[in-house]
Amino acid sequence: MNAPVNLDNLEVGFDVPALPGMDEADIQTPCLILDLDALERNIKKMGDYAKAHNMAHRAHGKMHKSVDVLKLQMELGGAIGVCCQKVSEAEVFARAGIKDILVSNQVRDPAKIDRLARMPKVSGGRVIVCVDDVANVADLSAAAVKHGTTIECFVEIDCGAGRCGVKTTPEVVEIAKAIDAAAGLKFTGIQAYQGAMQHMDSYEDRKAKLDAAIAQVSDAVEALKAIGLEPEIVSGGGTGSYYFESNSGVYNELQCGSYAFMDADYGRILDKDGKRIDQGEWENALFILTSVMSHAKPHLAVVDAGLKAQSVDSGLPFIYGRVDVKYIKCSDEHGVVDDPEGVLKINEKLKLVTGHCDPTCNVHDWYVGVRGGKVETLWPVSARGKAY
Amino acid sequence: MNAPVNLDNLEVGFDVPALPGMDEADIQTPCLILDLDALERNIKKMGDYAKAHNMAHRAHGKMHKSVDVLKLQMELGGAIGVCCQKVSEAEVFARAGIKDILVSNQVRDPAKIDRLARMPKVSGGRVIVCVDDVANVADLSAAAVKHGTTIECFVEIDCGAGRCGVKTTPEVVEIAKAIDAAAGLKFTGIQAYQGAMQHMDSYEDRKAKLDAAIAQVSDAVEALKAIGLEPEIVSGGGTGSYYFESNSGVYNELQCGSYAFMDADYGRILDKDGKRIDQGEWENALFILTSVMSHAKPHLAVVDAGLKAQSVDSGLPFIYGRVDVKYIKCSDEHGVVDDPEGVLKINEKLKLVTGHCDPTCNVHDWYVGVRGGKVETLWPVSARGKAY
Repeated sequence: MNAPVNLDNLEVGFDVPALPGMDEADIQTPCLILDLDALERNIKKMGDYAKAHNMAHRAHGKMHKSVDVLKLQMELGGAIGVCCQKVSEAEVFARAGIKDILVSNQVRDPAKIDRLARMPKVSGGRVIVCVDDVANVADLSAAAVKHGTTIECFVEIDCGAGRCGVKTTPEVVEIAKAIDAAAGLKFTGIQAYQGAMQHMDSYEDRKAKLDAAIAQVSDAVEALKAIGLEPEIVSGGGTGSYYFESNSGVYNELQCGSYAFMDADYGRILDKDGKRIDQGEWENALFILTSVMSHAKPHLAVVDAGLKAQSVDSGLPFIYGRVDVKYIKCSDEHGVVDDPEGVLKINEKLKLVTGHCDPTCNVHDWYVGVRGGKVETLWPVSARGKAY
Repeated sequence: MNAPVNLDNLEVGFDVPALPGMDEADIQTPCLILDLDALERNIKKMGDYAKAHNMAHRAHGKMHKSVDVLKLQMELGGAIGVCCQKVSEAEVFARAGIKDILVSNQVRDPAKIDRLARMPKVSGGRVIVCVDDVANVADLSAAAVKHGTTIECFVEIDCGAGRCGVKTTPEVVEIAKAIDAAAGLKFTGIQAYQGAMQHMDSYEDRKAKLDAAIAQVSDAVEALKAIGLEPEIVSGGGTGSYYFESNSGVYNELQCGSYAFMDADYGRILDKDGKRIDQGEWENALFILTSVMSHAKPHLAVVDAGLKAQSVDSGLPFIYGRVDVKYIKCSDEHGVVDDPEGVLKINEKLKLVTGHCDPTCNVHDWYVGVRGGKVETLWPVSARGKAY
C-alpha cells in the first residue's frame, strides 16, 4: 500500500483515536473502525464481479474520501480510477497521483473551472467532468486552452435522480456536439446514475427503475452513434443496481462506493432472493466504535456517539451483533441505548452500523483499521471536509 | 482578538474557502460564513443580559468549537469561561489558555480520565467535570492524585433531558459527599440542563418544564446546604430557557451556545409575546453559503450544499431572505431548490440557515467572517472532529 501517514508526533485521544499495534480495547471512542478482513473481501468481490462482466469499475471516492481505501480498491479490486463529486476531492486524489479521475458532477464556478483545468498537470493523468448545460462548454474550453490541458467531458443524463443532468436525447446530442467542437475538450462519454432507486427495498422495484433508465440511456447512445459520436464510456451504477448496468449491454463502467463499507440504509435492501444485502452479498466493514459512558437509569445506557459522530439523515444506527440492546435516540454528543435487562457496563464498547456511510465518514478525521483484535493501521479521511 | 491563523501557505478552494480581504462574491462554496456584525450584537446582548441578572455566563463551546468565537464571547460578552462536552474539546480550549473549563459531561474511560487530570497543568486554570455515578469518584480521585492536580466536580441532575444525570436528591447528596471526601477532587456545584425543552415552540410549555426543573434542583440544593455542602455553582440554561434560570433564585450560571449563531430549529421557537426568537431576540449570524450549480430543469435549481455541508437531523435549512425559492431536498453533495419562476442563475449565491448549528459547524474546517461585503477574517473550527 502507499506510505503510511507519519504518526510520530500525534497524541492518542487528542489528534488520533488509536495507534497501530494497540489492542482494539484501547481505542478512544467514538471513532470509525474498519474491519480490514471484511473490507478486503468486499473489495475483491466487487472487483471479481466487474471483471467477470467486462465492466470497468471506477470506485466512488466520495463515499470514503480516502486515498488509502481507493488504492486498495485499485490494487485488490482492479478499480481503474476514481470518481468523486467535488473539485477539492478530486485535487486530493490528483495530488496522490491517481491517473483517472472523474468529477461526476457539474463544475460552474470560474475559480473551480480553473482548478479543474490545471488538474491534469497535477496528476499527470486524465480528468473528466460532467456537463448538463451547453453554456458550460465555452467556460470549460477556455480554461483548458489557457492551461494547455484537455478536459474530458461526460454529458450527464438525469435518468431518475431528479438533480443534475438533462432528460432528453436531443439535449444530450446538442451538448455532446458542442463539447466535440470545443478546443481543449474531448467528448468521452455519458454519466447516467439512477440515484433515487438505489435504496428501494424491493429488487423488482429497483429493476423496473433501471430498465427505464437503461432504455433512456440506450436511446441517447444510439443517437450519438448515428452522428459519429459514439461514447467511449457509459458510466453509472451503484451498490443497489450494479448488476442491472452490468447486464445492460449499454453501460461499460460502474461507480459503486458503499459496497466496500456497507451501512444500515443499504443493508436493508433486498437481493433477488429477498435477502438483505448485508446478510450475504456484502459485509459490514465500517463501524462507529462507541462506549457506554453513563447508566444512571437502570434501563437506559448512554453512549458517547451522537450527531457529531455520524449523520442520521437515513435513520439511526443499529448496534452490530446485538439484539438485546437498541440505539433509540441521538443528540449532539450522546446516544441513548435501550437496555431493558440492564446488561451494559460502563466503558463497554459497542459497534454501530451507521444509517448512511458517506456523510458519516465525512465527520471523522481517521479510519482505524483493525484485524484480529489489534489496530493494524490508521488511514486519514484524506478528503474530509473537501466540499468546495 | 487572538493572533490570526497563519494563512500564508493555504490555497483558496483546496485548503480554505476564502482569504481575508476577498470580496464576499469570490468565496468558494459551500462554506460557513459568519456575519460579524450580527455575531457581535448577539454576543453583547447575552453578556449584558447575564450581567444585569447577576448570572455568570459560561459559553457553550461545543456549539461553535472555536477558540476565536469563545474569546469574543469572553471579551465582548463577559463570559467567564467555557463548557464543552468532550475531553478532546476541552484540551483545545486548555491549550489556548482558557482558565475556566467545564466538561459538562461524564468521563469514564481510564485514558480520558487521565487526560482530564493532566489538563489543569496545560491550561493553568480550573477544570470541572460532571459526575452521575458514585463509582466514578474513585477513578477521578486517583488520577488527580497521580498528577497532583485538582479536578472540580459537578453532580449532574437529570432534570428532563433523559440522558446522563441522576434524578433524585438522595442520589445527588450521596455523590456530592463522595466527591467531598475524595482526595484530589472538589465538590463545586450542580449541572442541571433541561435539554429536552429547549426546542418546544411555546413559551408557556417551556416555562412549565423549567418550573419543574427548578423545583427539582432547588430541592437538591437545599439538601446539600443542610449538610454543609452548599454548591458554589448551579449551572444550566440554554438559548430557549436562560430567562427562566436567570430569574429562578437557584441557578447562578448560564451555559448558552446557539444564541450566538442561531439556527432554524431554535429560530422557530416563540418568545413570551408569541414572536419567533429569530425575529427580534437573536439574529441569524451563521450561514451556509451555497451556489447554484445546475438548472437543467426550468423549475428546479441544484445548489452545492448537501448532507456533507450540514446536519439535517433537525430538518432542512431555509434560504435566508428569500420567499420565492425553497430548499426542498438534500443528498450527499446537492441541495434541490424549488424555483417555480425560474429566477435563479447559475453561480448565484444563496445563504442557508441550517436546521441545527452544532453538528453543522462540526462538518466544516473554517468560519469565514464577513463584514460589509468583504471577508474580514478566517477562524478555524478549532475543535472540529474532537469527539473523543
